[in-house]
Amino acid sequence: MWSSRPEGEPQRLLALVDGVFAIAITLLVLDLSVARDLDPAAYRAALRELLPDLGAYALSVVVLGSYWRDHRRIFRDVREIDGQVISLSMLGLGVAALVPFPTRLLAEYGDQPVSVAVYAGAVAALGASHLAVAAVLARRPRLRHDRPSETARTLYLLDGATTVVVFLVTVPLVFVTGPRIMWGWLVLVPLRVHLGRRLQARG
Amino acid sequence: MWSSRPEGEPQRLLALVDGVFAIAITLLVLDLSVARDLDPAAYRAALRELLPDLGAYALSVVVLGSYWRDHRRIFRDVREIDGQVISLSMLGLGVAALVPFPTRLLAEYGDQPVSVAVYAGAVAALGASHLAVAAVLARRPRLRHDRPSETARTLYLLDGATTVVVFLVTVPLVFVTGPRIMWGWLVLVPLRVHLGRRLQARG
Amino acid sequence: MWSSRPEGEPQRLLALVDGVFAIAITLLVLDLSVARDLDPAAYRAALRELLPDLGAYALSVVVLGSYWRDHRRIFRDVREIDGQVISLSMLGLGVAALVPFPTRLLAEYGDQPVSVAVYAGAVAALGASHLAVAAVLARRPRLRHDRPSETARTLYLLDGATTVVVFLVTVPLVFVTGPRIMWGWLVLVPLRVHLGRRLQARG
Amino acid sequence: MWSSRPEGEPQRLLALVDGVFAIAITLLVLDLSVARDLDPAAYRAALRELLPDLGAYALSVVVLGSYWRDHRRIFRDVREIDGQVISLSMLGLGVAALVPFPTRLLAEYGDQPVSVAVYAGAVAALGASHLAVAAVLARRPRLRHDRPSETARTLYLLDGATTVVVFLVTVPLVFVTGPRIMWGWLVLVPLRVHLGRRLQARG
Repeated sequence: MWSSRPEGEPQRLLALVDGVFAIAITLLVLDLSVARDLDPAAYRAALRELLPDLGAYALSVVVLGSYWRDHRRIFRDVREIDGQVISLSMLGLGVAALVPFPTRLLAEYGDQPVSVAVYAGAVAALGASHLAVAAVLARRPRLRHDRPSETARTLYLLDGATTVVVFLVTVPLVFVTGPRIMWGWLVLVPLRVHLGRRLQARG
Repeated sequence: MWSSRPEGEPQRLLALVDGVFAIAITLLVLDLSVARDLDPAAYRAALRELLPDLGAYALSVVVLGSYWRDHRRIFRDVREIDGQVISLSMLGLGVAALVPFPTRLLAEYGDQPVSVAVYAGAVAALGASHLAVAAVLARRPRLRHDRPSETARTLYLLDGATTVVVFLVTVPLVFVTGPRIMWGWLVLVPLRVHLGRRLQARG
Repeated sequence: MWSSRPEGEPQRLLALVDGVFAIAITLLVLDLSVARDLDPAAYRAALRELLPDLGAYALSVVVLGSYWRDHRRIFRDVREIDGQVISLSMLGLGVAALVPFPTRLLAEYGDQPVSVAVYAGAVAALGASHLAVAAVLARRPRLRHDRPSETARTLYLLDGATTVVVFLVTVPLVFVTGPRIMWGWLVLVPLRVHLGRRLQARG
Repeated sequence: MWSSRPEGEPQRLLALVDGVFAIAITLLVLDLSVARDLDPAAYRAALRELLPDLGAYALSVVVLGSYWRDHRRIFRDVREIDGQVISLSMLGLGVAALVPFPTRLLAEYGDQPVSVAVYAGAVAALGASHLAVAAVLARRPRLRHDRPSETARTLYLLDGATTVVVFLVTVPLVFVTGPRIMWGWLVLVPLRVHLGRRLQARG
């Protein structure tokens, strides 16, 4: 039903994606700022008040770093891209470039459930765009150098889908449980390590 | 009349262009911000007031994404560049880097015709600079790996010129019709899809 | 006296330089901003007041664009770089990244001689760092693929040195003549076109 | 104990790193700003007050430039990367992207010991992340094209560790000696030049 002609090598798309991730990571730091002309005590207090901002910065570096690594893995064997891959990648870029905004909300209004919901929604959208690109590439073998095994693909999709689901269920739940639900995201660490190892063993 | 000596491979020009597009897309997000220290109700209201900003962000990601894709297509078969291609590309870069500014005007003053006019003017200028580069490259076959068919070239120029004309006629018209004329830009979606398909079939 | 061992291919240095130029060009636009919540008349007035900022933006795009092109020409035949080339390039990067600052001074305080002096000093420093890199590379043929003719090299150094001198003499002169001396920079346009043509014919 | 499968070429990681360094260098300049609408005398005074900011800018360009060069040297012979190299590199990127923040603290509150401590801590963390990457790569010869000599490796680690130690001891000491201890960082200049020469001679 959807036809799609290959449109050449992925190099420039990868350069654009790497650029956007590099800038999104670096822009996060613009929100770390201290007013000018404070007295020494107020200055040290202002620095202490930046600790949640630093936490939000670290979280977003981890999130963006993981998704960049994810993107690198998806495109590792890609030889050519077509119009749909470009469009879906642009969608993903638009979301990745957006991450500094919910990060700022989390840093400044982390006690408000809506901040956590917006953040989780953005991360879920980023994950979903990567899953969509991976799914399109999986169905077009001629765009790839080689073909990953069925098991590797299933594990990869399971890994990606789990992350999306974890962040997605946070969106409504945070209004019930309050912002502490964020700590639940840590469940992804052992889960991804476990899937990552199985992926390495099979892939 | 205008002589021009090839000046080597296009790689670094493409890297510069990809960098500028990546940064322009990412800078758009700097305008999404919420004042600090609001109470919960005022915070949620401030988030709701950001919806037009988010709309302007999405529009500019689509516009910059399309033009980036356009640029990639123009330079796909380019083997070498000369001084004029570099100068015209710099002009285009200057306009692409400018896009975050009219985007901000649209987000904050979208009800003022002059904002729509400035935005449409910037997009038309970006399109015109790409058309100019494409026209120069079309007349210098030795800069290219291959030669697109006459039909493909005509369709491409038609596609590019249509976009420029649509945005250009908005500039005076918006002062008569008001900002709602923006929705007329949506006419470009089916039009470009249609031309894109014919281009794929012939190109 | 100064020994220097080649330290590998220039690719990553070029990527860093392209990145800095792309960002410096794009950051210039952050200074174009209009206060929120103005009434229609005040908004149009604020837009008109941005015209000098837009002029300064255009000037800096031209300056950075020319120096980027210059850099591309210097490194076109470079096969390997050494520690000194890297150090001098870093100096140049530090100055190129600085350009948005004097641009802002020019936009906001263009009627003050000191703004013009700072701007001219920054551009002269950028030009001098490029000349220094070109001079080091000219004396180390083993870093290059080929060797430009003596005439081409002389013309290139003449071109670069002229630009540096023109901007350098502005620094003291502007305090005598006032900011109008800026228009004298336009003398560089025919001069560089002329030298550029002779360079193309010989090089 | 830690197993690790190679995950392909380092190109995209290097592109991401180059992007982050380019942006971190360029963002430093955003802090150089002068209020609008000052009278001529106040404007010149504001420019003079920016001199410490310019000093902090220069220091951070030197620091980031050195670490970028360091990174380039570490990855020069790297053929493939694995998951651990990526994770440690991401950590390093997170710290490099952070550098504009302590730079701003140093520019605005350079007389406060805590600013110097934060700055020194950030630089030490950046150095430590590079050392960690270098150590991982040193123990996995299959990731490299060639194998540096034992002496070269020892000299390299000595160089890196010295820088980390110098910045690390500043963190507690500055609270005793005051901010003047910063000048002690200059001891690194002759030290690195000396080690660099020995490294060139042996490497």
